[in-house]
Amino acid sequence: MTSRIPSFDSVLSPLDYRDDHVALIDQTALPGRLEVLRIATVSEMVVAIQRLAVRGAPAIGIAAAYGMVLASRASCAPEHMAEAAEALRAARPTAVNLGWALDRMLGVFRAHEGRSQSELRAALLEEARRIHAEDIEGNKQIGRFGADLLPNGCSVLTICNTGALATGGYGTALGVVRAAWAQKKLTRVYACETRPLLQGARLNAWELLQEGIPFRVLVDSAAGALLAQGRVQAVLVGADRIARNGDTANKIGTYTLAVLAARHRVPFYVVAPASTVDLRAASGEAIPIEERGPEEVLAALGRQVAPQGAEAWNPAFDVTPAELIAGIVSEHGVLRPPYEETIPAACAPRA
Amino acid sequence: MTSRIPSFDSVLSPLDYRDDHVALIDQTALPGRLEVLRIATVSEMVVAIQRLAVRGAPAIGIAAAYGMVLASRASCAPEHMAEAAEALRAARPTAVNLGWALDRMLGVFRAHEGRSQSELRAALLEEARRIHAEDIEGNKQIGRFGADLLPNGCSVLTICNTGALATGGYGTALGVVRAAWAQKKLTRVYACETRPLLQGARLNAWELLQEGIPFRVLVDSAAGALLAQGRVQAVLVGADRIARNGDTANKIGTYTLAVLAARHRVPFYVVAPASTVDLRAASGEAIPIEERGPEEVLAALGRQVAPQGAEAWNPAFDVTPAELIAGIVSEHGVLRPPYEETIPAACAPRA
Repeated sequence: MTSRIPSFDSVLSPLDYRDDHVALIDQTALPGRLEVLRIATVSEMVVAIQRLAVRGAPAIGIAAAYGMVLASRASCAPEHMAEAAEALRAARPTAVNLGWALDRMLGVFRAHEGRSQSELRAALLEEARRIHAEDIEGNKQIGRFGADLLPNGCSVLTICNTGALATGGYGTALGVVRAAWAQKKLTRVYACETRPLLQGARLNAWELLQEGIPFRVLVDSAAGALLAQGRVQAVLVGADRIARNGDTANKIGTYTLAVLAARHRVPFYVVAPASTVDLRAASGEAIPIEERGPEEVLAALGRQVAPQGAEAWNPAFDVTPAELIAGIVSEHGVLRPPYEETIPAACAPRA
Repeated sequence: MTSRIPSFDSVLSPLDYRDDHVALIDQTALPGRLEVLRIATVSEMVVAIQRLAVRGAPAIGIAAAYGMVLASRASCAPEHMAEAAEALRAARPTAVNLGWALDRMLGVFRAHEGRSQSELRAALLEEARRIHAEDIEGNKQIGRFGADLLPNGCSVLTICNTGALATGGYGTALGVVRAAWAQKKLTRVYACETRPLLQGARLNAWELLQEGIPFRVLVDSAAGALLAQGRVQAVLVGADRIARNGDTANKIGTYTLAVLAARHRVPFYVVAPASTVDLRAASGEAIPIEERGPEEVLAALGRQVAPQGAEAWNPAFDVTPAELIAGIVSEHGVLRPPYEETIPAACAPRA
């Protein structure tokens, strides 16, 4: 464990590459303790991703990229690098940013084949840092585009953590909140606590307190009453994978918020970088949904809730159909329906 | 504390009157510990209701009735009895069964004015036991009417605890589950955990395990994915107060389930005895909604979740509009829209 908090260009970041390791905030310990882990190998990074020490689709993409740098420290043999990439890719199934970042890293690796190991390592580190820096820069663009959508004096509803901790260091949906707050457009954030792992109550609350942005935590099931009472003017959510037609996988509960927002005619925005788009997935049906262990539901903060012998159903994500999404806020601007056209136009790889 | 578990006519009951006190299961300690409290005074009963040692609209009505028996042990002076009734009535605002039971007890008290204290006490105890017995009998009727609504081989979704613990000793929505299970119509119960106090994961699970009925607990926000996947054929919820037009106040999150059920064309049934109907409330707007302290949200099972300084919004109930309710299952049968007509016809006091 190290004591220095990760930062990137003096922005709080959930992780940062140091000389021979990745310094990574253990998000499972927040807000109680701020612990910075020292991740020195690919397998340590895989474990950190699986146990959600680092989480959030953009952040785990960056973690995977740095994981490839760690791999190259042991060996730059192509088989070794390919194995490392596969181990990282398999760490979690739903967020597409993981595979996207790994494909970029493997591309750089192949482009430098035949170079010396130290040149290869330098090229990989440069690419990982570029992915990290681009994410922060993209988030800031996203924040500006998103804030423009919001009316003055508004309150917004969020789910999960979509801030600095979930990204390179600024935030997607919470990046829009930061930008709107800076523009004095925002009155209050209502933050769904986000069971089972409580990323809203633990992590969004931690970030919002640091920014001095007024907020209230609510249980996820109170979102219906909140919307019925007209307390929010927009719902802002992140994304783990966006299909070509706009269907969006995100934290379990997101779909419910979209259905409620539609009933109450409150705009529901997905806020995510283009790296979250999976052009190979034609619709939400093609997105793999991670089911996690029952103990996350049957316990809260590690303490048993349900009686011994109880079973649980614990999908970590759900899919919101495109028809419920008013706009997708990306670094390329706000994409609007028909998403089958606007998403490929904005997100197809450039020549 | 006593060791004998409360029962009424050998049915598990959340409470039972003994010689000089009420034996009451402390539902805040379940499922970890089965503790039976000894409640000997009105003020102890008020505290038990407020801190949810006894909860569930029908159960707190019965608790209030026995509370009046406890009051009569101290004195049968009319001012004393009126004060006791007001203290019990004010213990919690949303469930109408509390006031309904107290009005019955006060009616019996007034009908016996001038009698000896021991005659008065006996009459009050008889009325409280009648309220208790009628609730169980009504629940069993409700169970039969509700089970008739369900298709063979169905699975159902529930919220909060609506079983023996929430009633005189059988259950409303969980009473329908019991009856359907006995008829071999039921495959599985999906039980929303029901934050903030987790009555689903703690209490419904405890009752279902005892009955050997297959179930899975889910976080409340997973209900959207559950319904989207077609895993349940009905949603069964209890009620704390039903307005004359059918609008229904129940545990926070109920409204969200109703909106989701409507989207997925799954019937949404309110299951409650006629004592839950408030004919004086023209619509849901007339129902007072209890807001409870922020600590219930900011902590889970007493353990701090959110960082110090975080605020919370914690309504304990929400209102489901009548238009989303496919039927209200009462001991008088299944009431259908237009509720403005069917509710008063079924639930108006008889001459």
